[in-house]
Amino acid sequence: MSLHAFDVIREKRDGNELTDEEIRYIVQGAARETIPEEQLSAWLMAVFLRGLSLRELDTLTTAMRYSGEVLDHAGLGRRTVDKHSTGGVGDKTSFLAAPLAAAAGLADPMISGRALGHTGGTLDKLESIPGYRTQLSLAEMRQVLEQCGASIVGQTKNLVPADRKLYSLRDRTATVESPYLICASIMSKKLAAGLNALVIDVKTGSGAFLRNEDDANFLAALMAATGERAGTKTVAILTDMSQPLGRFAGNWVEIQESMALLRGERHPLSEDVREISLVLAGWMIHLGGKAASADEGRAVAEAKLKDGSALRIFREMVVAQGGDVQALDAGEAFHQPRFRRVFHAPKSGYFTAADCTKVGWAVQRLGAGRERAGEPVEAHAGLEMHAKLGMKIEAGQPLATMFAEDEARLIEPEELLREALAIGDAPVQPPPLVRRIISEENKNIFLKSAQRT
Amino acid sequence: MSLHAFDVIREKRDGNELTDEEIRYIVQGAARETIPEEQLSAWLMAVFLRGLSLRELDTLTTAMRYSGEVLDHAGLGRRTVDKHSTGGVGDKTSFLAAPLAAAAGLADPMISGRALGHTGGTLDKLESIPGYRTQLSLAEMRQVLEQCGASIVGQTKNLVPADRKLYSLRDRTATVESPYLICASIMSKKLAAGLNALVIDVKTGSGAFLRNEDDANFLAALMAATGERAGTKTVAILTDMSQPLGRFAGNWVEIQESMALLRGERHPLSEDVREISLVLAGWMIHLGGKAASADEGRAVAEAKLKDGSALRIFREMVVAQGGDVQALDAGEAFHQPRFRRVFHAPKSGYFTAADCTKVGWAVQRLGAGRERAGEPVEAHAGLEMHAKLGMKIEAGQPLATMFAEDEARLIEPEELLREALAIGDAPVQPPPLVRRIISEENKNIFLKSAQRT
Repeated sequence: MSLHAFDVIREKRDGNELTDEEIRYIVQGAARETIPEEQLSAWLMAVFLRGLSLRELDTLTTAMRYSGEVLDHAGLGRRTVDKHSTGGVGDKTSFLAAPLAAAAGLADPMISGRALGHTGGTLDKLESIPGYRTQLSLAEMRQVLEQCGASIVGQTKNLVPADRKLYSLRDRTATVESPYLICASIMSKKLAAGLNALVIDVKTGSGAFLRNEDDANFLAALMAATGERAGTKTVAILTDMSQPLGRFAGNWVEIQESMALLRGERHPLSEDVREISLVLAGWMIHLGGKAASADEGRAVAEAKLKDGSALRIFREMVVAQGGDVQALDAGEAFHQPRFRRVFHAPKSGYFTAADCTKVGWAVQRLGAGRERAGEPVEAHAGLEMHAKLGMKIEAGQPLATMFAEDEARLIEPEELLREALAIGDAPVQPPPLVRRIISEENKNIFLKSAQRT
Repeated sequence: MSLHAFDVIREKRDGNELTDEEIRYIVQGAARETIPEEQLSAWLMAVFLRGLSLRELDTLTTAMRYSGEVLDHAGLGRRTVDKHSTGGVGDKTSFLAAPLAAAAGLADPMISGRALGHTGGTLDKLESIPGYRTQLSLAEMRQVLEQCGASIVGQTKNLVPADRKLYSLRDRTATVESPYLICASIMSKKLAAGLNALVIDVKTGSGAFLRNEDDANFLAALMAATGERAGTKTVAILTDMSQPLGRFAGNWVEIQESMALLRGERHPLSEDVREISLVLAGWMIHLGGKAASADEGRAVAEAKLKDGSALRIFREMVVAQGGDVQALDAGEAFHQPRFRRVFHAPKSGYFTAADCTKVGWAVQRLGAGRERAGEPVEAHAGLEMHAKLGMKIEAGQPLATMFAEDEARLIEPEELLREALAIGDAPVQPPPLVRRIISEENKNIFLKSAQRT
């Protein structure tokens, strides 16, 4: 019996469970472009509004994973682990977690993305290092992995082509924010990278895509369930994104902050990113079999940070991928934006709230990010924060410094910061950095409580 | 503030009411093809699953109505009325109702459709009259209306182009069966025809698109509400479609049966179509202001049937539109299908049930209809029924006679009839022909009870 896209759309429209064959038919039709866009779009909206069962989600994720080439790390001699973030502002944890996991004897084949909207992109940050190549062939990536244990690259054309098609349609048809479709998109790409273990950093708070905590829990549980069923040990960690992570947000400035941390330097405003990086790396090391618990993994990670081995691995990876290690080591001295402007506190009080999405847009407007896929970004644009939530603030003290290559680009970000950063009268307690761990053990609580109708 | 299709899709996706401006933007984008198909399709699926408020439905219908040219009957000197059917098997009421209304001093500018799937098409039936032209210019149609008071034509390219686009997408994306989208599609075209009054024949039962009676009531109430708000007196009449209407189903055979009725001939198997035609015409005459009630309108219609004036008008219209009136008058003598085959009752008992959709498919497979838009149809293919629900049946008596131009086309219909026509042991009461009248007065009952979530 031959399948028709029309019938599969109708079934999902009516809230029925699709068969594995029907789901594979849609995914292949997307990858091979044999199902027209209007039918794929109607199907995506039906999935958005009707949801998927866990079995449907597994089948969708697996079919997408195998819609193109998949990575195979046989013979590498190391277990493969990775971390993935749902997207934030100032989130540079990859530059610490990947070399930390590698330093512990694991391999991290990290396929990363670019800045979009209010969130930064790992590839754009790495490309602010002169010469760093993010577009490696699979053979080149394998070489870097063998040499360093970590390689951070961009997605190749042939990896998960079904997601490229479906994501482009979701982006045009308002079907992005479905937990099911987000899960299938993320997990298909991560699973195609051939991982033994995966740690997902699900952001919550004012800078996250999913601001509602129930939604974030549900997505986290879906990803944990989908990863585990596919044979990849998976843990989702809900972390705070109610203010930018660390001291800097942008491209080069984030590399610079990461290098400082890798060198063992401490700064009060970098403590949060250091902590989350160690937690993520601890889980990667634990799930990768190099520590009996996540806490032990964290201790291993901290030791690898302190003994300089993570720094050595990151430097080696940059060199192996063509990056200028002298610029890298120069740190702040290499940061030469053409324009800087300080944003001062309008009054005295306590730093009580940040609209972190607005801060992210300020970073984007400064030139560090992009509004639409394909736009260029500036390596040295970005933001330095001078305060964290809860701190006492004096009127006129610097709250943030903006960096841009064009003076006109300072105007809108200044306005955005004025709207985003609130000074109040009473002190507040900032939210905990790690809100929750969702794993195979407790995922069902969140699948049940948040299951959509 | 400029509108974006993306935002309008998202609003409807989230179950919010759209503004008039947003709805007009979508309709114009469909008509002018400035919104791409994938976005229109996602919007259609969101509307399918989220529904529309009555205000949104009004705005959608009105925007579609005015998306192209509209008919204007100023100076015609007659009030304009029309009937529309949601589609059935053997439904030839238009060939009686239009000349009956015209005979009562009204004008019926009837823009009809073609056979599709299990339902027949008024245009295909008329085109079985040699020479009959269904594609008239607006000026030609006006001339026929002035001369005869009725003109039955096909849709021009410029009438409601938004519906042409949206319907084609609905047909591909499984978004046809939405009461809101059905209502907007039908009513936009009927309102664009410039009507003072409209009678809608909503079919229910096994041969109807909406088999569930609540759904049919809801659609009827939506259409009554939408017509009245647009200033066209509108009544929806739920009629029985649990068996083919009348004695014949097909193309020429339905013209032949209609001519017999217009000539005043009676046949037990044609009584139902005669009755429904008089009811529909009665309402048209009443709403058109030529009778104080629908019952009085029915009496006027019956008089016009008996005095031969409706027959005269129908013949004049056929002549005015190029049709061969000698063939028309020849009736059964002109019916010369190459192959006939009788389907005999497999056992004795009572004719207890018909799957009227299957009977419709039998008619289609015989060559009288089409599976997909654009396919040709045979003028002389079709079916004659020899029994009505409830009749006593002897084993071996003829239940139906099939007509086809190709012997091979008889095989599948015979099988369909075997499945569709049930002979049982106990007599049954056939459903009433007219199940319910839904008008401005009682529509709210059905809007409330059937409103979807």
